[in-house]
Amino acid sequence: MATVPLLSDDEASPEARAVFDDIRAKRGTDYVNNFWRAMAHDPATLKAVWDRLQTVMAPGALDPLVKELIYVAVSTANGCDYCIHSHTAAARAKGMTPEMHAELIAVIGMAAQTNALVTAMKVEVDEVFKA
Amino acid sequence: MATVPLLSDDEASPEARAVFDDIRAKRGTDYVNNFWRAMAHDPATLKAVWDRLQTVMAPGALDPLVKELIYVAVSTANGCDYCIHSHTAAARAKGMTPEMHAELIAVIGMAAQTNALVTAMKVEVDEVFKA
Amino acid sequence: MATVPLLSDDEASPEARAVFDDIRAKRGTDYVNNFWRAMAHDPATLKAVWDRLQTVMAPGALDPLVKELIYVAVSTANGCDYCIHSHTAAARAKGMTPEMHAELIAVIGMAAQTNALVTAMKVEVDEVFKA
Amino acid sequence: MATVPLLSDDEASPEARAVFDDIRAKRGTDYVNNFWRAMAHDPATLKAVWDRLQTVMAPGALDPLVKELIYVAVSTANGCDYCIHSHTAAARAKGMTPEMHAELIAVIGMAAQTNALVTAMKVEVDEVFKA
Amino acid sequence: MATVPLLSDDEASPEARAVFDDIRAKRGTDYVNNFWRAMAHDPATLKAVWDRLQTVMAPGALDPLVKELIYVAVSTANGCDYCIHSHTAAARAKGMTPEMHAELIAVIGMAAQTNALVTAMKVEVDEVFKA
Amino acid sequence: MATVPLLSDDEASPEARAVFDDIRAKRGTDYVNNFWRAMAHDPATLKAVWDRLQTVMAPGALDPLVKELIYVAVSTANGCDYCIHSHTAAARAKGMTPEMHAELIAVIGMAAQTNALVTAMKVEVDEVFKA
Repeated sequence: MATVPLLSDDEASPEARAVFDDIRAKRGTDYVNNFWRAMAHDPATLKAVWDRLQTVMAPGALDPLVKELIYVAVSTANGCDYCIHSHTAAARAKGMTPEMHAELIAVIGMAAQTNALVTAMKVEVDEVFKA
Repeated sequence: MATVPLLSDDEASPEARAVFDDIRAKRGTDYVNNFWRAMAHDPATLKAVWDRLQTVMAPGALDPLVKELIYVAVSTANGCDYCIHSHTAAARAKGMTPEMHAELIAVIGMAAQTNALVTAMKVEVDEVFKA
Repeated sequence: MATVPLLSDDEASPEARAVFDDIRAKRGTDYVNNFWRAMAHDPATLKAVWDRLQTVMAPGALDPLVKELIYVAVSTANGCDYCIHSHTAAARAKGMTPEMHAELIAVIGMAAQTNALVTAMKVEVDEVFKA
Repeated sequence: MATVPLLSDDEASPEARAVFDDIRAKRGTDYVNNFWRAMAHDPATLKAVWDRLQTVMAPGALDPLVKELIYVAVSTANGCDYCIHSHTAAARAKGMTPEMHAELIAVIGMAAQTNALVTAMKVEVDEVFKA
Repeated sequence: MATVPLLSDDEASPEARAVFDDIRAKRGTDYVNNFWRAMAHDPATLKAVWDRLQTVMAPGALDPLVKELIYVAVSTANGCDYCIHSHTAAARAKGMTPEMHAELIAVIGMAAQTNALVTAMKVEVDEVFKA
Repeated sequence: MATVPLLSDDEASPEARAVFDDIRAKRGTDYVNNFWRAMAHDPATLKAVWDRLQTVMAPGALDPLVKELIYVAVSTANGCDYCIHSHTAAARAKGMTPEMHAELIAVIGMAAQTNALVTAMKVEVDEVFKA
């Protein structure tokens, strides 16, 4: 149960409904997932987040699959269950193989471990890394 | 100031010194960074972490640069200053351009934002993401 | 399923039961929520937390609704599902409108994003902010 | 030392420079703080974040000071030193008194404590909070 | 629903199956818990984590129960529900009494509170603590 | 530079000064560390935290050294630099040997790693752990 209502197409304001329609058009699917239906309680933020997400995740110096892997990594470190599920699914849709997934998970675990070791020891940053 | 001593080559035990030497050989540099000198207070863990790190970060289904980007993303989400500096430097050494770095940072910021939005709203995971 | 038992009125010790009664009296309701029933395994901590919570959340330089909004913000950043639900409900009971809730969520998301951006870039604090 | 350059007015691109100028105009000060100079390596993200920040932090159902208090709370929970300093300064500039600051800190501490207690006990959310 | 399959004995590779068998032998039980069945999608990481875990959690300068208490504390601070449940169960199996559990929870809550207070105030580390 | 003033004995209110004196008496030292001097801006919270800390950290079912180890573990997972330094120092003062410290750090790192692995895989809690 969410802390805000998940709006159906009929319940959403025209501004929110326009974003739903854009999501459908861009993704080539009729399905609008719960995140956007929850965000629809605030159409201005819904639109801002959807617009910005498209820009940030578009092909650029990094390809979209790599961006999804990074998204899963951040979501895991932040403990966002919804985001882990939705972006793992998105990564698969963009070509993530089981082998890539396994390596992604192993790197996340390794990083979490050394993050904790360094933090416990309060190691000072080497000058060479600041250059 | 770290909470454990950073051991010089002379202060390190033979087991730790052997890891230092392996780091030098594998990386083709004389420089051993502070993390390893701090870990040297516990030679068994030092060796275990170094050995495992090489395996996890080796070329595989994901290339080493992508793995470094993921490492920076996790380290940022975990707020590990040392790790952000050291792995940003490592990513650059493996070919991360300023454009790639800018996109990495933008994706990290975007993910952190939607992670927080989803968490505040406690959105339930769509069944389609669990398939 | 909690990692400690949730004690009913009959199962709770007299000290814990006294806190339950005080919660009922202060809140003007018969309902004692799960957090307190879980805390009842440790009556001394139960009492200390309940007493302190009342002091901290009382009207002062900040009004109780603002304090609840801050509580939701911290709980979201810490990923505490129970706390997000319970303090969102408490904020509503103290007058949070859907518009205020929407703005609260938007600020939380914005803060999470710039927190991550700053951390990834390791920006040094301006001297003017330390004055 | 940041992981990206902090660009001076002369080093910034025209797009980034335009944002610097807008920051100066909107804030009525010549000073552009380090966060924006660091973001200037990526003018598109700089502009997107600055534009969105103004919208989110504008007066609305919540007043700007309350929004700054929420920002400080999130930044504290996320451990973002720069953000704690900059938004504490911003809150003071918007009227936060020492008494309000003291209460803000006390609420943040209280929330962090009960967040941890609830999480350690894995207390299930009461049905009444989901209504 | 996990983001990777939980492999049964029949589905697991011979390498993963060998780890399952070792878990059974070392723990003196037929039951292999979900974490290991999930890790089995990546037999090399499964084996590395299982081997390392045994070393780290073995009796040493700290006894195994104290190590489990520390594990629960870290898992709580990291918000890992599975880990809180599994390591609380492990701590009980190693002798944690309800009184010890209550004190563990109280210390975790206290630490979370002062962590947040210190972070909000950005208190500088005393020189005496660095000696 | 803290976000609140660190009060000297002369600057502190009589209520805060009384807590400073109690800290000195209980610890048998003239030194009052920065945390308490920062908390002194809010004498009521200062007293509440100091009083509660003594209760929570007192000998009980867990001995004070074990409690300090747990405190360091939580502080590390929460990334609180001040707390890592101060409680590592406190643990040493209560008898933590370098060997114990090394094991503490190794457990923290191990827990952080498996926390992240479990979270990335979204492993469901085994029924046996809920009993």
